[in-house]
Order: sequence, then structure tokens, then C-alpha cells
Amino acid sequence: MKLLVINGPNLNMLGQREKSIYGDMTLESINDMLVKRANGNAAVEFFQSNHEGDMVGMIHRTDADAIIINAGAYTHTSIALRDALLAVGKPFIEVHLSNVYSREEFRHKSYLSDIAIGVITGFGVMSYAFAIDYFLEQNS
Amino acid sequence: MKLLVINGPNLNMLGQREKSIYGDMTLESINDMLVKRANGNAAVEFFQSNHEGDMVGMIHRTDADAIIINAGAYTHTSIALRDALLAVGKPFIEVHLSNVYSREEFRHKSYLSDIAIGVITGFGVMSYAFAIDYFLEQNS
Amino acid sequence: MKLLVINGPNLNMLGQREKSIYGDMTLESINDMLVKRANGNAAVEFFQSNHEGDMVGMIHRTDADAIIINAGAYTHTSIALRDALLAVGKPFIEVHLSNVYSREEFRHKSYLSDIAIGVITGFGVMSYAFAIDYFLEQNS
Amino acid sequence: MKLLVINGPNLNMLGQREKSIYGDMTLESINDMLVKRANGNAAVEFFQSNHEGDMVGMIHRTDADAIIINAGAYTHTSIALRDALLAVGKPFIEVHLSNVYSREEFRHKSYLSDIAIGVITGFGVMSYAFAIDYFLEQNS
Amino acid sequence: MKLLVINGPNLNMLGQREKSIYGDMTLESINDMLVKRANGNAAVEFFQSNHEGDMVGMIHRTDADAIIINAGAYTHTSIALRDALLAVGKPFIEVHLSNVYSREEFRHKSYLSDIAIGVITGFGVMSYAFAIDYFLEQNS
Amino acid sequence: MKLLVINGPNLNMLGQREKSIYGDMTLESINDMLVKRANGNAAVEFFQSNHEGDMVGMIHRTDADAIIINAGAYTHTSIALRDALLAVGKPFIEVHLSNVYSREEFRHKSYLSDIAIGVITGFGVMSYAFAIDYFLEQNS
Amino acid sequence: MKLLVINGPNLNMLGQREKSIYGDMTLESINDMLVKRANGNAAVEFFQSNHEGDMVGMIHRTDADAIIINAGAYTHTSIALRDALLAVGKPFIEVHLSNVYSREEFRHKSYLSDIAIGVITGFGVMSYAFAIDYFLEQNS
Amino acid sequence: MKLLVINGPNLNMLGQREKSIYGDMTLESINDMLVKRANGNAAVEFFQSNHEGDMVGMIHRTDADAIIINAGAYTHTSIALRDALLAVGKPFIEVHLSNVYSREEFRHKSYLSDIAIGVITGFGVMSYAFAIDYFLEQNS
Amino acid sequence: MKLLVINGPNLNMLGQREKSIYGDMTLESINDMLVKRANGNAAVEFFQSNHEGDMVGMIHRTDADAIIINAGAYTHTSIALRDALLAVGKPFIEVHLSNVYSREEFRHKSYLSDIAIGVITGFGVMSYAFAIDYFLEQNS
Amino acid sequence: MKLLVINGPNLNMLGQREKSIYGDMTLESINDMLVKRANGNAAVEFFQSNHEGDMVGMIHRTDADAIIINAGAYTHTSIALRDALLAVGKPFIEVHLSNVYSREEFRHKSYLSDIAIGVITGFGVMSYAFAIDYFLEQNS
Amino acid sequence: MKLLVINGPNLNMLGQREKSIYGDMTLESINDMLVKRANGNAAVEFFQSNHEGDMVGMIHRTDADAIIINAGAYTHTSIALRDALLAVGKPFIEVHLSNVYSREEFRHKSYLSDIAIGVITGFGVMSYAFAIDYFLEQNS
Amino acid sequence: MKLLVINGPNLNMLGQREKSIYGDMTLESINDMLVKRANGNAAVEFFQSNHEGDMVGMIHRTDADAIIINAGAYTHTSIALRDALLAVGKPFIEVHLSNVYSREEFRHKSYLSDIAIGVITGFGVMSYAFAIDYFLEQNS
Repeated sequence: MKLLVINGPNLNMLGQREKSIYGDMTLESINDMLVKRANGNAAVEFFQSNHEGDMVGMIHRTDADAIIINAGAYTHTSIALRDALLAVGKPFIEVHLSNVYSREEFRHKSYLSDIAIGVITGFGVMSYAFAIDYFLEQNS
Repeated sequence: MKLLVINGPNLNMLGQREKSIYGDMTLESINDMLVKRANGNAAVEFFQSNHEGDMVGMIHRTDADAIIINAGAYTHTSIALRDALLAVGKPFIEVHLSNVYSREEFRHKSYLSDIAIGVITGFGVMSYAFAIDYFLEQNS
Repeated sequence: MKLLVINGPNLNMLGQREKSIYGDMTLESINDMLVKRANGNAAVEFFQSNHEGDMVGMIHRTDADAIIINAGAYTHTSIALRDALLAVGKPFIEVHLSNVYSREEFRHKSYLSDIAIGVITGFGVMSYAFAIDYFLEQNS
Repeated sequence: MKLLVINGPNLNMLGQREKSIYGDMTLESINDMLVKRANGNAAVEFFQSNHEGDMVGMIHRTDADAIIINAGAYTHTSIALRDALLAVGKPFIEVHLSNVYSREEFRHKSYLSDIAIGVITGFGVMSYAFAIDYFLEQNS
Repeated sequence: MKLLVINGPNLNMLGQREKSIYGDMTLESINDMLVKRANGNAAVEFFQSNHEGDMVGMIHRTDADAIIINAGAYTHTSIALRDALLAVGKPFIEVHLSNVYSREEFRHKSYLSDIAIGVITGFGVMSYAFAIDYFLEQNS
Repeated sequence: MKLLVINGPNLNMLGQREKSIYGDMTLESINDMLVKRANGNAAVEFFQSNHEGDMVGMIHRTDADAIIINAGAYTHTSIALRDALLAVGKPFIEVHLSNVYSREEFRHKSYLSDIAIGVITGFGVMSYAFAIDYFLEQNS
Repeated sequence: MKLLVINGPNLNMLGQREKSIYGDMTLESINDMLVKRANGNAAVEFFQSNHEGDMVGMIHRTDADAIIINAGAYTHTSIALRDALLAVGKPFIEVHLSNVYSREEFRHKSYLSDIAIGVITGFGVMSYAFAIDYFLEQNS
Repeated sequence: MKLLVINGPNLNMLGQREKSIYGDMTLESINDMLVKRANGNAAVEFFQSNHEGDMVGMIHRTDADAIIINAGAYTHTSIALRDALLAVGKPFIEVHLSNVYSREEFRHKSYLSDIAIGVITGFGVMSYAFAIDYFLEQNS
Repeated sequence: MKLLVINGPNLNMLGQREKSIYGDMTLESINDMLVKRANGNAAVEFFQSNHEGDMVGMIHRTDADAIIINAGAYTHTSIALRDALLAVGKPFIEVHLSNVYSREEFRHKSYLSDIAIGVITGFGVMSYAFAIDYFLEQNS
Repeated sequence: MKLLVINGPNLNMLGQREKSIYGDMTLESINDMLVKRANGNAAVEFFQSNHEGDMVGMIHRTDADAIIINAGAYTHTSIALRDALLAVGKPFIEVHLSNVYSREEFRHKSYLSDIAIGVITGFGVMSYAFAIDYFLEQNS
Repeated sequence: MKLLVINGPNLNMLGQREKSIYGDMTLESINDMLVKRANGNAAVEFFQSNHEGDMVGMIHRTDADAIIINAGAYTHTSIALRDALLAVGKPFIEVHLSNVYSREEFRHKSYLSDIAIGVITGFGVMSYAFAIDYFLEQNS
Repeated sequence: MKLLVINGPNLNMLGQREKSIYGDMTLESINDMLVKRANGNAAVEFFQSNHEGDMVGMIHRTDADAIIINAGAYTHTSIALRDALLAVGKPFIEVHLSNVYSREEFRHKSYLSDIAIGVITGFGVMSYAFAIDYFLEQNS
């Protein structure tokens, strides 16, 4: 099984950015942790972009079996990402590092949630880890 | 570590109720599965009630270290549950079996989310399992 | 055929309560009248509670073939009752003694109407009577 | 006692129109059934029009003692019908064949409900029948 | 004169709960203080429940002349309590320990205020005390 | 100068209809009074219909120099009347017998007001009279 | 009969201010015209202020039998004026020079209209004149 | 193939009405142009009415295979037309001469669009022409 | 301790104004009663104005230790009063004679409540009296 | 004449993506069909991008005489595209393959429609074809 | 060139009032600083009032060439100030000391912004200084 | 001190684009003017992009001490830009050439304003110049 983890805008800044909200792990260390989590039972690939269009393109061309996506700010504004995920029809999980519900009102709306398998929000890197666990357990 | 899993109204009907949405596991089998998931690393207790007031009371008197709550319909209507969780100040995770975002609009609002550690929604029994995993991993 | 008539909060006060709105029949006399209406063609059982949770529980455990429900104030606030009715999947009719549309704005919304067979509102005890007639005529 | 049953726009199409929603009885057969329902205890007259203005005019000039009205689409858009019913001040019951609450949002609002005796919705031809029963029982 | 003081959900937790908002007096010490306030000029009874239905029932069966109610979270969500107070038609005062207007938006709406004599909010235990004073002064 | 006075739905019922709101003059007596008001300085013609389409048609074909319109209920619902008045481009005044602002919320919106010369509301027959005076004084 | 004409903020600027909207008559010439209109059948007094508080005070202390008020911008923002008019309970007419409905959305709401006898808007100085005519004709 | 072109209220005024918005072709010349467009490949019939009820009736009784409808103002206010189109279940296209999106807000909502094949707006007579082309090309 | 009681617009009319809402005590008699209530334990000063600006100025220059304010209509419209109270930072209590929640919707919003110690509404002169009691008891 | 056809995000997936909504033609075959439609009377160029910024840039630098744009998801979210089209001031037509009005609510709003010549929605590839026809007929 | 700087309610309290928001400069020292900023190239006059009506009056009678206005709380509530600025038609700039967008929601709306040359908010005294610079640079 | 001036989508079109709104200076000439304004007291760098993602990236990697941003259309739609500015935590000023408050409603909302030092809107190139002045004066 191949899994694609997509991170959206500003997530390349993890470890430097608003640590009280996002923690102090870098995106690289998160990715490393997730590879370990998969423990060889799934290939895990990573993609980060600040470009809505690049994220759309990556969703189109990936050959992964399933997608884990933290679309960051685009979660709340991008119908294009929704349409890309609808276009490829792959199972995906929406994750967030922080608890979006304890932040600004405009972060409470997602264009992705209703078409996702499910949503995991607020557990830091564990939000991603549980998404991986889910696909592994479904696959086993 | 002691964990309390609280299930709200109608969750006693699992396995008989709208199986296309909630799956065919009974609440008892879910609970058994969660005890196994904890694998002896945490004591897991269970409480189910159709009464808002009983759920409030259980939150008040539990000696658990943390709470996993699927408040069912009360998620969307009960400020009393919110206040109970604020009153005891214990860490808690909000979980849902189904993906509430793909259902009626009134299920998109939660009185609990912003004061929870995080929210896990849409993964069936695995929503609870990940919540247990989280507390176990935090505790280890 | 067995019919269950469920009355929600404050309906135990009929005959004493705001008579200009609800009339001066007691709940007991309404129930007697309904038994007569059924005229032996259906067994009619009655349940009244001021507790949302008890109403949920009654819906779960009843062996009636169909339900007539005047959920009173819970009509407008209880998703738990909606879920209970969805969980058992029995045909039900929503009734109201008074014309809820000529009262406060918040009484115009019902969490039950869209999943009911139909709604009868404003005819006093006849609202219940017509619901019984409906099930009898369907059954005959 | 004389009763007037008014049917609004498109109800002349019953039996041909969206049968899964409205059933397969024609308006004529509904009217026949209602005459039988009255069983000689009331004269029942019928009026159907696709014209808001004609319905207004009929309400003005009828010598019926009470009115049963299924205003169809005009239920949701016509203040003129409301004013006509207020102008003549006769008791009336609002009926609908289908359960309007399980259909489009714009069918949930009625300009007639708050000034009606009551509302009966979702019981097909029985919605009209119960309205006739009500007037007969009130009259007896 | 007999007065009934009703406290709603979570108020049994006073003294342990969010002290910066609610102060550190327990409900028992508040009650003692209020008995002293009445100074023998009125009998003061107390009722606390986390159950909406029990509060409704207490309102129905009390023989008090007037009611002082801090419905806690149910203030903002319970039409059933409103209906219970309307049903018995007794004079009542709505009180709150904290200033609900400086808290979450959903605490600004009350289903009780418009049918109360008045509302006293933000004065801690003195909110109750003034309500007692009011009834005593009216009665004298 | 020729003036056309258009009255919309239910205004044919004046003198019989809700006299506490609309007064006890019939439409005929109002018309007579207005002819006298014009005092030979303008020809005043009258048109009343309960049909939106007839009112639209009358606006299209009239050779009057200006229009006084009490569109009744259609004031609040008819974009077709607005378009008819825009189509002919004649000066017109919107009048109402009753003070629409002290009635239901839905009577506060008019599709005609912003394209009228002005609006006169609440003065009974004098609302029409002042409109006639205006055109006479403009014309003199 | 004594009539008081109250003009609110910025109306002292008539004749200099936005002439395409308000015309080129000064307030003084309007007042002169209105005195002539009254033609000795009523004493007409005038008051203009840019101060909400002064307008409130004038309403309190006037001995006029009726009031004609163009509250200008305060029409849309002043509950204090509404309360002053309620306090003295005198009959009053709301007038506007311009057609407020063809201007900014916030000019469509009035805190005075529902408690006025009626509203005349859009006729320039004739708006005031018709108000005077009304009181004269009522009085005759 | 037989096509019915329905034009709603005020469209009989084309060529005389607000030419800057609607152009200077009369409805007759538009109809002639459309017959030519069909070029003998379809019979094109025309119906214009200012009456909502007549439009409803025409939709009921037409034997056309498909409908092209410019409902004018009724586009935005008529649920009756929607129901008529649903009742007959014929394919139809919604057209507008002007670009409704660059006009008043209330012209942006249509009760017909979601049940139409598609919508063509803003191209003057070409809006109708393309609708004819569509049916011809589908049919060929 | 020095207390300042501020009364806003129209409160000078007490005793003459809408007695069914506000009672028949004059402002002077209320003030006398409050001085007696203070019973020499606090100096109580009074200020009434119909001018928002004068109320703002009085708040700026008072040397009182605390403020009791019935801002009347300005409660619902004046951000300037809010800012004045924020500017001086003195403890204050918001009071109302009538129960504002049982009156017009626009009286339910206050620009002062969230920054007050608390709010007392609906008890007539006792609303002020309790505010004085509060400051006295706090001070003792 | 040179025409530019711009396709936005996910339209490169046509033929693979949600065929029940978008049909099974690829973008290439659509483009070929459109070139044939132009029949040598106009040069037709094509641009597709998933990047909002690239679409903006293309609009800036094109030397086409007119633009046909299916902005896909960006239709509903991109003010930048609106501004680009305003900046170059070229005539353009908004097209959609599917009927956006029968899909999610958020697809009903367009930032482009009010500044377009017109909008064609729901006709599959024919939506583009009619846009080409329009420019050809205007140009001829 | 003559410039008038108008400060609204509570700005006389600068230096004493909420220093964390407004800084510790007094209004006098701000004014002195602004005179220096003008550096003799413009006469700068100052006006502060807590009275909406006085601010309106000052705008009417000033002979300044341009106005800089910090209307304080009246920015968000006063249509009268808007009308006064429209009445005199002088160029003006809206300024704020604090960043109103990071404060309460009700401070985000201004009745002045759309008719101002521009708005400068959040720079403390420099907000005024830049406004002066603007007029000086325009004038030079 | 190093300042970065970021211009968003379509600002590369200045001098060619809607000159009545944006003036006729090109972006290059604006930039030249700003360098002169800085007068050697700060290094001023410039970045323009039509890509939201590129703007996000530039904010991440700049070594400037402060940022001046005219995000153009992205001001109103981009949470990603907000997050980028939050991520780097640098002081920034939001500027606009035109007065956004006198344009379309959707330009009145900014995702950046509440986290900026301040906002300058409506002064053309001077909006940028004042922002530079601010940083220079703060720095001096």
C-alpha cells in the first residue's frame, strides 16, 4: 500500500512557526516519525506546497492508494482542492495539527470534511499518525 | 491511568440502529475491543446514558484521569455537558462514529470541540481506539 | 396493531396549564378519549415524561407498531429524540395540541417533522385522534 | 354546513404528476372520496385554480361556513391569499398531500399557518379527510 | 411566604468548579447564606438537579409562592423549563452568578428572561440574595 | 392630466374586511371621494384586480400620465409589478391605507418603493388623496 | 390646534446641501410655506436641532397637539427619539424630503414608523405639507 | 420535434421597455428570428403571458417535446412555475435576455435553475437562439 | 464611599410616561428613596440627561467610587457610553426599570452589559436599590 | 478574430473525473470540437491551469479579442480572476459544463458573472460552443 | 490651506484612558505635535466634542479646506456625521489611533469610510500625522 | 533597516488597469518613488506576484525587518497569507491604493487587518509612502 501525505501552505514553517499552537517539530521530523509509524507496512510519500494549484496537480498525478491531507489554510478556502479529491475519488483523511475549533471562526469551516472518510484534529503529529494507523488497519 | 469512555443517547442501540451509518458492532463489542486496545496499559471504564443529566453527573464524579466522549445528539445541543467538562477540567477527546460533516447541517456544530484536546470523527470504532492510543502514548 | 402515544414535558399538566392555549382536558381524559377512538381496532398505550432521556429510552424499547408523538418543548430542541426515532425506524406522526405557528418563532422549528409520516397541529385532542385514525385506516 | 375545498396551482395535475411524492389519485377521485367522507353531514364544494387571483376571488365570494385549503406553491409565496382569508375571517384548515418538511427548504414556510385553525401535512388524501372530519365533529 | 430556589446543572460543583468565574462558595454555603438573608420572613427551600426533566417536575409540584431560578446551562437551551414556568404561572426571578454577557455568545440568549419578573446577573451569591430581598419587600 | 389609481388584491373587500385596520369605507366610496378631490383638475380612473397579471397588463396599456398604486399584498411579493412600472417609465406614487410598519415584518419590504416618486402610508383614504394632490400641485 | 414641526440633524443645511437629493429650498422657506399651508387653521411651530438630546427634550416639553417629524439621520439610529414620542403619547407623522428607499440600505429602517400615524416620504416640501393637511382635515 | 418558447410578464413590452437593458427588438421579431433559427428542423411555438397561472396552465397542456422559458420576474418569485415544470417532467432551458447577475440582488435567485437542463443569460435574443440550437443538436 | 446614579434619556419623564411599563414614581421620588436606602453609608449623587455627550462627560468627570447606570435607550445604541465607562475604569452596574427582554427585540442588546459588574433588570426602583445594596455590602 | 478559451482547476481531468457530472469527453477532444465549431472564422486558443496565478497572468498577456472562461472552482472563490478580467477589460463569457445550480450551495455564487457579457451553464461542451457562436455572430 | 482635526467622544481622555490601547499622549500633546508636523504649510485647527450634534455643527460651520476626523465611537453609530460630511462636501480622511480591526466586531463597521478619501487606522498619533502629510502633499 | 513591499495579483497591471480607480502610475514608477521616499534610511525591496503561494513563500524567506503588503484581491480571500504573516511574526502594514470601502461589499473584509500594525487605504501611492514613513519614524 502506498500513502501520500499532503501538507498545505505554511506547514513548511513547522518548528519555527507559532510554536504554542503548532509545537516545535519540523515537517521533516514529522515525516520521519510517520515513516517509522508505517513500519514498512506502507510506503509513505510526502508532498508540501504553498501553491493551491500544485496541491491540485499532485492529487491528480499521485499513484498512492490513499491520501492524508492537512490542507492548512486552504482547508477553509479551496473548492479546487475539494474538486481534485472528488476527481480522483481516492479515500482520504483530513488532519490538523491544532484544534481548529478553538481558533478563529473562519477555521471551523472545511471544504473537505464532508467528502473525507473522517477528520482528526488537534493531536499534533499524532493526527497524522492515527490516519496512517487507520489505513494500515483497514488494509490488514 | 484510568480512562472513562462516555457514550451519549441512542448509542446503546448500536448494532440495531441505522447500520449503514453506524456499522453493525454493538456497544458491548466496541467496549470489549477498546479494553483490548488498552492492553492493560490503562483501565478503561464505560458509561452510556440517554440522559443529559446522568452524563453530567458521571463527569462530575468520575475519578478517571481523562475522558473520551461521544455525546451523540447532545454534542450539538448540550451546554450542560460543556459546563460539566469545564467544571472538572479533565483532558478529554471528542469522538464520533460517523462523519458528522456529511450529515445534516445541525450536526456540524459542537458545544464540546473548542474545549477538547481534539476531535476524531468518521472512523467507526477506530475513532475511540485512536483516542485511547493518544492517551496511552501521552502517558508513556 | 399496537400504537404508542408519547407525550413530552409539561403535558402532564394539561387541564391545569394555560387553558386558553391547551384547553381544559387532562391528559388522562385525552387518553381515555383516544382509547375510545381506537374502538378496539388497535391497542393504544401511553407514555408521558418530562425527561428527554426517558422518552428516548421508551422509543427504543417499545414493541408498538407505530408511534404518535407530541414531544412538547423537546420538538424544537431535541436531536436525541430524532435519533431515537431514526434508530428504531418505526412509522410515526408528530402532533401538537396548539397551533405552534401562531406562537413564538422558536416553536416553528421541529427536529422531527422531516422524518415523520406527517404532522397534525392545532386541533387539540383531535390532533391525536386523527393520527390514530390514520394508522387504523392504513391498517384496515 | 357547507365546506369549500380549495386546491391551488398544479393540483389539477394529480395522478399524472410526480407520483412518488403526490400519489396516483386524481383530483376528481380525491374530491369524490371527500364527498363520501362528509357522508351527507356537510355539503362539500371544490375549487381548483392555478391563478392566485382566482383563488383570492373565490375566497371572497364563497358562502361556505369553513374552508379547507391546499394552496400548493402559493402556500409559500402568497400574502394575497393570507389577506383574502383574513378579509373573510372564516375558519380554515391548511392541508398538504406531501410532507413539506422533508422537501426543499422554501416549502417549510407558510403564509397561512399562523392564521389557520391548524395544519395537516403529509397524509395524502387523508390530510383533506381529517380536515373534513374536524369540521364535522366541531359541528356535531 | 415560601420561596423555592432552583439551581440547574453543574451548580452542585460550586466551590470546586472554575473558581475564577463562579467564586469559591459551595452551593451549601450559598443556601445557608440565603436562609439567613430571609431572616425568618420567608421559608426558603432549595432544589438542585442536573436533569432538565427533574427541574421541570419540581416546578410542577412545588407549593412555593415564588421561584428563584439559576437554570445554568439550561437557561440557554431549555424550552421545557420555560413551558414549566408558564404552566404553573408563578412569579419567578432569573439569576446568574457570573455575568453571562461577558462570556460566550451562546450564553447571551435566555428562554426564561422575557417571562420572568426580572433578571439579576453577575453578582455571585448576591444575585440570589437580591431576588430574595425582592420577594420579601414585595410581600411586606 | 389623467391619473390612474390601481388597487391590488383584496382591496375590493374594503368596508367588509378587517375594519379595525382598513376602516369602513368601501372602495367605491373611496373612488368617489378621490374624484371629488381632483375637482375636475385631473381625470381620475380606477382599476382594481386580484390578479397580478391583470395589474401588469393595466400598467402596460394605460394612457394615464401618472399612476397611484396600492398594490396590497403584491407590494411585498411582486417583481412583475416592479418590472411593469419600470417598463412604462411613468411617474407613480405608492400608497397604503394602513401603516404597514406596525404590522407583520413581511409587510415592511416593498418591491416598488425605491422606483416610486414617494410613498404615503397609514392615512387611510387620505393616503390616496395626498397622492392626487401631489400630481395636481406638480401639474399646476 | 397647535402643530410642532421637528427637523433633525443637517436639515439646517437645506438649500446648500446635496441639492440633487434635497432640493434648493432652505429650511426657512420651507417653514414659511408650511405656515401658509396651515392658512391660519393651525398654529405651526418649528424646531430644528442637530442634537438627539435636544430633540428628545423638545418632544417632552412641547404643548403642541400633534407633531410632524423629519428626524433625518436619527430616524435610523435613535431609540431615544422613539422613547420620547412614546413617553408623550402625542399623534405624530414621520416625513422625509427624499425617497429614503432609493438610497443606502441603512436608511430603509426607521425606529419611528411603527408608532407613527403614518409615513410620507419622497415628496420634498410636500411631504411636510401633506402632514399638515392631514392634521387639519382630521381636526375639521 | 416541437419546441415551446414561454415568455413571462412584461416581455410583451420588448422593444418599448428599458431598451438599454433589453434591446430594441420586439417579442414578435424575436419570435420570427427563432423560427428562422429552427430552420424547419423543429416546430417552434410561442406563448407569452403576464399571468403566473396562465403560464402554469400552458406548461400543463403543451404537447411540445421541450420548453425554453424566460419567466421574467416570475423566475425569482414563482414556486408554482417550478412545480408545473416538475409536474410535466419535460426537458427545459431557462433563458434571460439581460445578465441578471449585474442587476438587483433579488434577480440572482431562480426557482427554476436547479431543475433546468441549463441556463443561458445575458445574450439578448441569442439566449433563446442557443437554447433552440441545443435542442436541435441533441435531436440530430 | 460615593455612588453616582446616572439616568439616560426620557427617564426625566418617569411618573408621566407609559406608567404600565415604568410605574408611577417620578425620578425625584426614586432618588429620594435611594438616598434613604443608602442610609448614610454612602453618598449618592444623581445625574440625568437626554444627551449622550453629557452622559459621557459626566462619567469622565465624576469623582464617585462606583456608578449605577440606567442608560435608557442609549443602552442599545451608544458605543460612546461604553467607551466612557472603559475610559474611567470604574466599577459600574447596569440597571433597568422594566424587563427589557419582554419588550422589542432591539432592547435585548446592550453595549454596556459585558463590561459591567452585573445587570439588574425588571424590578422597577428596586433595580437601583439592589445596585446600591451591592456596593454597600462590598464596601462593608 | 482571436478567442481564448481558459479552463481552470481540475478541468484537465475531464474524461476521467466524475463522468456522471462532467461527461466523458477529454479536454483535448473538447478543444478539437471547438476549433471545428469556429470553422476558421476565428482563431481559438486554449489555456488550462490549476493555478489561480497562472490564469491571472494568462488573462493579462493574451492578445485575444475575447475570452471564454470556465474557471471551475475558482469561479466561486477568486476575486483575483475577477480583477484580472476587469484589468484587461476584454469581453468575456462565463461557461460551465455542469448545471452549477443543481449542485452544492457554494457553487451558486460566482465572482465573475456580473462583469461577464453573459453566462452559459449546464450544456456540457455545448456551453463552450455557444460562447464561440456568440462571438462569431457578433463579429459577423 | 486650513485643516480641521475633529476628535469625537472620549478622545479628551487620551493619556488617562486605556493606555495599552490608546497610548499615553494627551490630546493636547497630539495637537501640538500635529501643528509641528504641518510646519507652517497649513493652519491646523482642532475640535473635540463628546456631542454628536456639536460635531455635526462644527462640520457645517468650519471654513477649513479639508477635514481629518477621528469620530471615535460615533464612527460606528452616527449616520448624522456621515450626512454632515456629505452636506458640506469637503475632502476628509478618517483616522483611528488603535487598530479597530483587532477589537470588537462592532468597531469594524464605519459610516464614514466609503465617503472618505481614505482611512488610516492603527498608527497612534501617526494616523493623524499621515493625514496631514497627505493634504500637504496634495496641496504642494 | 530593510523593508519588503509585497504586491499581490493584478498590481503588475498598474498604469494599464482601470485608471479611474488605480491611477496611471506603473508599479515600477511607484517602486522608484518609494525608494526615493526611504531616502537611504531603509533598504526597500519589492516583490509582486499573482500567485498566492509565491507570496506565502516570499514572506517565509524574506530577511526584511518589516513588511508592507498590498495583497490585492487576496486580501479578501487568503487565509494562507494571514498564516504566513503569523508564521514569521514580523511587523507589517496593510495598504490599498483605492478606497476599498467605496467598492464592492466583498472588498470590505480583510483576513490581514486584525493582525497588522495598521491599515492605510485610499491614498494611491501615498498609502505605501506613509507605511514607509511609519517604519522609518519608528526606527529613528
